[in-house]
Amino acid sequence: MLNNECLFCKIIKGEIPAFKVYEDEYTLAFLDKFPSGEAHALVIPKVHAEKIFDMTEDMSGKVFKTVNRVAKMMKDNLGIEDLNVLQNNGSVSGQIVNHVHVHLIPRKLNDNIEIDWESNEMEDEKLEKILERFKG
Amino acid sequence: MLNNECLFCKIIKGEIPAFKVYEDEYTLAFLDKFPSGEAHALVIPKVHAEKIFDMTEDMSGKVFKTVNRVAKMMKDNLGIEDLNVLQNNGSVSGQIVNHVHVHLIPRKLNDNIEIDWESNEMEDEKLEKILERFKG
Repeated sequence: MLNNECLFCKIIKGEIPAFKVYEDEYTLAFLDKFPSGEAHALVIPKVHAEKIFDMTEDMSGKVFKTVNRVAKMMKDNLGIEDLNVLQNNGSVSGQIVNHVHVHLIPRKLNDNIEIDWESNEMEDEKLEKILERFKG
Repeated sequence: MLNNECLFCKIIKGEIPAFKVYEDEYTLAFLDKFPSGEAHALVIPKVHAEKIFDMTEDMSGKVFKTVNRVAKMMKDNLGIEDLNVLQNNGSVSGQIVNHVHVHLIPRKLNDNIEIDWESNEMEDEKLEKILERFKG
């Protein structure tokens, strides 16, 4: 279930310390040691899964129940209203630790965080073709 | 439960068409009409909630079970291995439609998507102080 070489598995096992925000049977939330700003938190499942594809639907649900709980702690206790919830899969997407983790990133005007893309309207005909392939 | 003025509530009610990838009693997944690239999908709850703070834990779990399912469709049917899962809360974070929605953004090398921040190690003493406030 856990991986001896994995940084986040070591945190789960208590071999590496962490600033724990919340913990239950299935999930763990802690402060990012290399944050984008104050109160940047991570939520992880207590099983070793590399990407979202490697988790069960049920485990995905459990992880994001905890994300919801931690987001509300941020709002209620820290007054945070603006928040990015981000989960990266694969090195191209920015994933560094290969154990599923969800970033909770509080936002402020003119902070140093960049989350953006060019967004253009797509024609219905093209969307229709993608949908066909998508559904398999 | 639904909001007459909300674009995504109109999609749920069928008043505006959408390219639906998956649907169940609680959630809906469809292709983004203004995508970052091919196969950019959105998952929404079938209740009107503006931000993650406005959803129950249970609903958050249901939404991300569907995210998990749609991510696996992307992998199995489209061969996608790199993927950002992103949910924005508040205008500063980049939220445009005020109904909770989760972006599934497939990634390729040198695409036009920017998700990045400066990340510096934080001292334990400072993390300890943030943790105290975080826990309320």
